[in-house]
Amino acid sequence: MRWTEGFIAVDWGTTNRRAYRIDQTGKCVDEFEDHKGVLTVPGGGFPVAVQEIRDRLGDHPLLLAGMVGSNRGWKEAPYVPCPAGLDELAQKLVWAGDREAIVPGVSYIGNAHADVMRGEEVQLLGAVAAGLVDPMGLVCHPGTHNKWALLRHSRIERFMTVMTGELFSLLKEHSILGDLLQSSVAVNDAFKGGVRAVAEHETLPADLFGVRAKVLLGQAKKEDAASYTSGLLIGADVRIGLSQPFGAQVTVIGRPELTSLYAAAVKEHGRETTELDGEQCFLAGIQEIAKRIS
Amino acid sequence: MRWTEGFIAVDWGTTNRRAYRIDQTGKCVDEFEDHKGVLTVPGGGFPVAVQEIRDRLGDHPLLLAGMVGSNRGWKEAPYVPCPAGLDELAQKLVWAGDREAIVPGVSYIGNAHADVMRGEEVQLLGAVAAGLVDPMGLVCHPGTHNKWALLRHSRIERFMTVMTGELFSLLKEHSILGDLLQSSVAVNDAFKGGVRAVAEHETLPADLFGVRAKVLLGQAKKEDAASYTSGLLIGADVRIGLSQPFGAQVTVIGRPELTSLYAAAVKEHGRETTELDGEQCFLAGIQEIAKRIS
Repeated sequence: MRWTEGFIAVDWGTTNRRAYRIDQTGKCVDEFEDHKGVLTVPGGGFPVAVQEIRDRLGDHPLLLAGMVGSNRGWKEAPYVPCPAGLDELAQKLVWAGDREAIVPGVSYIGNAHADVMRGEEVQLLGAVAAGLVDPMGLVCHPGTHNKWALLRHSRIERFMTVMTGELFSLLKEHSILGDLLQSSVAVNDAFKGGVRAVAEHETLPADLFGVRAKVLLGQAKKEDAASYTSGLLIGADVRIGLSQPFGAQVTVIGRPELTSLYAAAVKEHGRETTELDGEQCFLAGIQEIAKRIS
Repeated sequence: MRWTEGFIAVDWGTTNRRAYRIDQTGKCVDEFEDHKGVLTVPGGGFPVAVQEIRDRLGDHPLLLAGMVGSNRGWKEAPYVPCPAGLDELAQKLVWAGDREAIVPGVSYIGNAHADVMRGEEVQLLGAVAAGLVDPMGLVCHPGTHNKWALLRHSRIERFMTVMTGELFSLLKEHSILGDLLQSSVAVNDAFKGGVRAVAEHETLPADLFGVRAKVLLGQAKKEDAASYTSGLLIGADVRIGLSQPFGAQVTVIGRPELTSLYAAAVKEHGRETTELDGEQCFLAGIQEIAKRIS
């Protein structure tokens, strides 16, 4: 094994994959992204799908993270229970071949709650290792399923997933609100109004119907509906995240178009945030794990 | 006009219509139900769709309620603002023809909320007129969009719509929880557990993801997921309804398979309910409106 001579890091999710060629100095020298997510790979198709990556980025060892380690992926990598840090992840790598290792996800059970993540853990812990996040901080990772993770001594102590992104998509694509939610979402007065509407009183499933009623009754403009609804959903999400007994610095990690919405919602709650790009955090985290492969 | 000699009452919704032949004594002597909801009627197709009803039930005056009075229906019947009772509805009937009257819906604007209903108002006010509901009571009307209505002196004082039924359908048909939600919902320990989970702390969008995580981590049985999820959604709904400053008797009106779920959730909150069949309430209400046609 010659991981010290460089490797290929793959962030392989449900609908997309991103692959990065990391050289021996830790620099990313080549990369690509495509839509060959885990769900598009046919049964038994992972060796071919992996070979495609090497055809493009070279014949190097592979370190893979994300849904590729789920029961719908290449080989299941059982969840590592909280508290989990980079050491625990590296110890529990699952080997799909001699030169192909899969990073496990993280699970949490406690406080009558159960939760799982796969992929976000590399970004969260990478950001800590890179010194970008308080090792005792609170991290928000927006996406289809937003994660709120509490760190303790550089490990994920516990976390909670909020279905915000998926709920917005369901409402936009399949609900009675669909025709109102086609415009783009912006941090404007409508968005902030949505955040404030659910900040005190949690009436989200009623406020959602109110989006349509307000437009019908001339109390709101149709073009504001998407931003207002996003504000309601992200506002309820942030209220949940901040209502946990977490007092720490809040960092939002992810795609910039999402982190800006969450940062704005957190700000409406009177808290400041730091926004970090998820891709850079992934690269930091995956290299820390590679270093731990003996 | 000879409404005193009987008429046809039609509860014409988005996806279904139910028509009843009411004789001069107020008795329902014939009826039918089909799937010719408002959305299935082509542009300009209502005269034909109405003739079908008369072909089956006789050449009588028609009194129609529900989405048939919406902007996607036969003729728009503008919402009557709260407070609204049977007198207000009868005064604001919209005539689609000489012998075809449409009952308007009801709107509410206040407390930073806006809301609309169409069809439920006939059932709610019919139940009051029939002496089945406290004229100062709180009424819950489950369906795709559940309504909580506060009555004052036999009129609808204000109301709030909660998107519970539609959210459950979206999750069942299109979400990551879909495969877990295919079994039938029952009032069992899982359902009651869902109600209690959201009774104190409103973390619904997080608890929904937890449904999947709990099954993945062996903390819950897959066959309980549908009942538990229904408990979460109806529990959040009931928490909203009961958290209003309403202290009155709670009546649940609708289809028995839905009213039993809401009654059970209200009971978990320590409140008793009366359940009423929506169809009987509709017939009571629509006849009260017919009586007011001079």
